Amino acid sequence: MGPHPAVAAIRLAVRRVLHDVLTDTSAHRELTPSRSPHPAPSPPPAPPLVLVACSGGADSMALASALAFEAPKLGIRAGAVTVDHGLQPGSDLRAAEVVTRMTALGLDPIESLVVHVGRDGGPEAAARDARYAALDEAAERHGATAVLLGHTRDDQAETVLLGLARGSGIRSLSGMAAVSGAGGRYRRPFLHLDRQTARKACMVQSLPVWDDPHNADPAYTRSRLRHEGLPALEKALGKGVVEALARTAQLSRDDADALDAWAAQAESSVRDATGLLECAKLFALPPAVRRRIVRRAAIEAGAPAGALFARHIEEVDRLITGWRGQGAINLPGKVVAQRQGGRLVIRQG
Amino acid sequence: MGPHPAVAAIRLAVRRVLHDVLTDTSAHRELTPSRSPHPAPSPPPAPPLVLVACSGGADSMALASALAFEAPKLGIRAGAVTVDHGLQPGSDLRAAEVVTRMTALGLDPIESLVVHVGRDGGPEAAARDARYAALDEAAERHGATAVLLGHTRDDQAETVLLGLARGSGIRSLSGMAAVSGAGGRYRRPFLHLDRQTARKACMVQSLPVWDDPHNADPAYTRSRLRHEGLPALEKALGKGVVEALARTAQLSRDDADALDAWAAQAESSVRDATGLLECAKLFALPPAVRRRIVRRAAIEAGAPAGALFARHIEEVDRLITGWRGQGAINLPGKVVAQRQGGRLVIRQG
Repeated sequence: MGPHPAVAAIRLAVRRVLHDVLTDTSAHRELTPSRSPHPAPSPPPAPPLVLVACSGGADSMALASALAFEAPKLGIRAGAVTVDHGLQPGSDLRAAEVVTRMTALGLDPIESLVVHVGRDGGPEAAARDARYAALDEAAERHGATAVLLGHTRDDQAETVLLGLARGSGIRSLSGMAAVSGAGGRYRRPFLHLDRQTARKACMVQSLPVWDDPHNADPAYTRSRLRHEGLPALEKALGKGVVEALARTAQLSRDDADALDAWAAQAESSVRDATGLLECAKLFALPPAVRRRIVRRAAIEAGAPAGALFARHIEEVDRLITGWRGQGAINLPGKVVAQRQGGRLVIRQG
Repeated sequence: MGPHPAVAAIRLAVRRVLHDVLTDTSAHRELTPSRSPHPAPSPPPAPPLVLVACSGGADSMALASALAFEAPKLGIRAGAVTVDHGLQPGSDLRAAEVVTRMTALGLDPIESLVVHVGRDGGPEAAARDARYAALDEAAERHGATAVLLGHTRDDQAETVLLGLARGSGIRSLSGMAAVSGAGGRYRRPFLHLDRQTARKACMVQSLPVWDDPHNADPAYTRSRLRHEGLPALEKALGKGVVEALARTAQLSRDDADALDAWAAQAESSVRDATGLLECAKLFALPPAVRRRIVRRAAIEAGAPAGALFARHIEEVDRLITGWRGQGAINLPGKVVAQRQGGRLVIRQG
């Protein structure tokens, strides 16, 4: 008799990603040029290390258990890190408990990372920034090939809705990538798996899980979305909403990538000999491409991407499409956009 | 003292659209070639006619009132049509009441259109199809230049969420267009105005409005969305959700248009001398463009657009990106896709 379907599902998801990691790694090795034309036979490479980032919650506990099961079969070393954000009393004890559980799963190395959470961009963004900085540092230090993250399809659906609430276009609808970070370090094996499966897999494997009180705290937007917003949307639109949102993420990501590539390629063709953007040539482009070029130019001039909203870009776009002698337009980061002699000039003022 | 801000807002919205209609019409006239090289002086053209489609609800009553006020100032004739769907007892009386109200606003011509609602695609889609067919016919018969529709920003937000629930990509997120139909016949002046403003404008003008019981009937998806889904989403994400959804619609529409144009242009470059799609050339395109070409080819071969889902296109796409000798793939409309000698062949089987 095989494992429970939920356990089979989490293992298959992790096995696929580990295969990808091995393929990418060996491809990378083949591409790395030898330093000498007649290299000495080198010692066999050390087995690659894959880390799981585990909070002790159901998603990442399930992920850790599947990694511990699959990695040895592929000659991969499996380790774990847990992040202590220091935001709640007793968070250090919690981290120590996660270390104990990772040890019981046979993972090695295991490390608890203490981070200091700042205030930039709100509590959720600040915690995320601190967490990824610590994970990056730990991955470097351990020479890890990949870091697995336990985000599920439900997390993805929530991320799409959060992006939708910004109303800033399809890039913000594209959610989390299956592969991200420097050199594709972060991998999300559960992005097509639902939260219920991860929870079930923990249950049938008798893995104790921790429910982060933040996840149910209505002070957090994501928590309100999870416990009120999404259920109401499912009630109105039917049970397939989470899957539809996750599929929207993937399609939006591909679309945004293609349009970014188009804009990058078109940009050189709309600059004059001195490198200034020519309004007549910009006008001839599709609005979607033109606005991306304007956005790129604003960011290049020093406008912070996160502070640059659709309405800023629209206003600059009207210098091209609705020219009636408007004055200079102020953008975030003290960047100024104006039209001069048929050219669009965007620079720090 | 000027009019109440809500009345000023609906009038401004209508005035802008009437200006657009006049500009488009005169541009069209200039482009129409004369039949004779020495035309006889023609009589002055009749003033253009603009119709409002009015259900008696607050949105379209506000629209009708603004049209009645603005049209004469621009030398435009203003008329109205109301559609009796025959779905509720007394709907004929309701239509007669709307005609009376339109008469009181001074609109002329006014017509009540009785339609038969079929069953294709569910009750909402069937009613919509019947309605637009009747409006098209009435616009032709009266020689109307444009038909104004009362959809508001709130309707747009709901439409985006309905599209999101399909999970079929950014085209379905692009909501309703400000200009649509044959020759740009349909115009939606209130697409950037909220429902509350339309309602307020009716109130301060003492216009009686009718609340369609369908709009509150939880049997309808849109009604559930309006009364439960969207309010819950606003509670979780903040009051800006409706505006963000409407902005997402506009941005998605521009993006989808640009990608469709790219796909249309790229399609010819990936066909061989006999017109078959070459897999190697398709493979080199960005996924977003490649999948659009595949979708176009499937529709051209006879697959009904509405039955063609993202998962169908993905499966065909794997013939290009993950070729391991798969068999033919059945698509809706008895269309079959298969790979033969490095070519993607899509035809009715």
